[in-house]
Amino acid sequence: MIEFFFDCSSPWTYLAFRNIQRLASELDETISWRPVLVGGIFNSVNKGVYAAREDTDSPKSRYLLKDVRDNAREAGLTLVFPPKVFPVNSVKAMRGCLWVAQDATARDHYLAFVEATFAAYFSEEKDISQDDVLAAVCGQAGIDADAFLAGIARPDIKEQLKANTDEAIRRGAFGSPTFFVGDDMYFGNDRLPLLRSAVLRARSSIPARP
Amino acid sequence: MIEFFFDCSSPWTYLAFRNIQRLASELDETISWRPVLVGGIFNSVNKGVYAAREDTDSPKSRYLLKDVRDNAREAGLTLVFPPKVFPVNSVKAMRGCLWVAQDATARDHYLAFVEATFAAYFSEEKDISQDDVLAAVCGQAGIDADAFLAGIARPDIKEQLKANTDEAIRRGAFGSPTFFVGDDMYFGNDRLPLLRSAVLRARSSIPARP
Repeated sequence: MIEFFFDCSSPWTYLAFRNIQRLASELDETISWRPVLVGGIFNSVNKGVYAAREDTDSPKSRYLLKDVRDNAREAGLTLVFPPKVFPVNSVKAMRGCLWVAQDATARDHYLAFVEATFAAYFSEEKDISQDDVLAAVCGQAGIDADAFLAGIARPDIKEQLKANTDEAIRRGAFGSPTFFVGDDMYFGNDRLPLLRSAVLRARSSIPARP
Repeated sequence: MIEFFFDCSSPWTYLAFRNIQRLASELDETISWRPVLVGGIFNSVNKGVYAAREDTDSPKSRYLLKDVRDNAREAGLTLVFPPKVFPVNSVKAMRGCLWVAQDATARDHYLAFVEATFAAYFSEEKDISQDDVLAAVCGQAGIDADAFLAGIARPDIKEQLKANTDEAIRRGAFGSPTFFVGDDMYFGNDRLPLLRSAVLRARSSIPARP
């Protein structure tokens, strides 16, 4: 089992969301989807992100934009970075991931919802903090928008997002996407080859049951 | 042809030095070895590196140390990071790379010299800014140490290191290792899969000669 801590406001996380599904399929591993609020992680343990965002005209910052495009091409994906609204408040979208995973009528559309959320933000440049945008995403994914908007306002859903975020911080995360194989943590779309090796190592160290 | 701008004081560059040789061999590409002084690049266009080094006790900085180890294991290499002397003044080592490449009696030992320099610093934790350490590296690589120490003091060799460093900055580099396929730049050991794709793309866009 691979735990995938993610926030839909990160372009690297969109790439990793695509790539982890391929990798898990290749390895025949299940993925535990763990929505978090990455802004909560940054505020707690990685405030340096905000200073880095201010730097928009250095050779390094210019390369980072090219690097997003290069990696998107490698993943077979077209995305706009930065999109019109950046950064975006992703709290409703991430509460939405939690509600969709748990609702009996919505849960079969989980991956469609997450994919449509990423695409709304990074391909269509929509503001995914807005209720009408999320309602349209629900429509695309085959989810009842009214039930969704009521669901993401529930205190227990809000609490779960906070708990996931706190758990990620407690276990050492400092951004999104963050992967765990047991306690072994990997950060970033570019660490999937290492994650793959970790899964294989973990298997070889666990004896098969008799 | 792949241009490899490198400085022996970076652990990621040691990994890339190993990995680029495998990749070039697989692709049947030549490598143009371009020694630079990465401190000169940092001072000119990437001073943020120095602030990042001050941060030694955050979740991100702790992960970076694990990440070096993880990537070293993946490359089949053991290295100590940070080594006892860090950062190190690599100017003599990098002038040495330039001299070794040009000297008729030394040039056949080029890769052995670069490998031994990396190993002295990252495996044996030697201070590669010191003449006696570099002389021992020469001995391991089959290079005359007296000729080497005279060679790296030559004004033309000093000038070449400055020129390589200035060229890297002019072309957009902000650290080491930096790769170019034509004008297409890639930064970091973890971008070798993208570099591989770039080499294949460049080939497919150049018609074979009749």
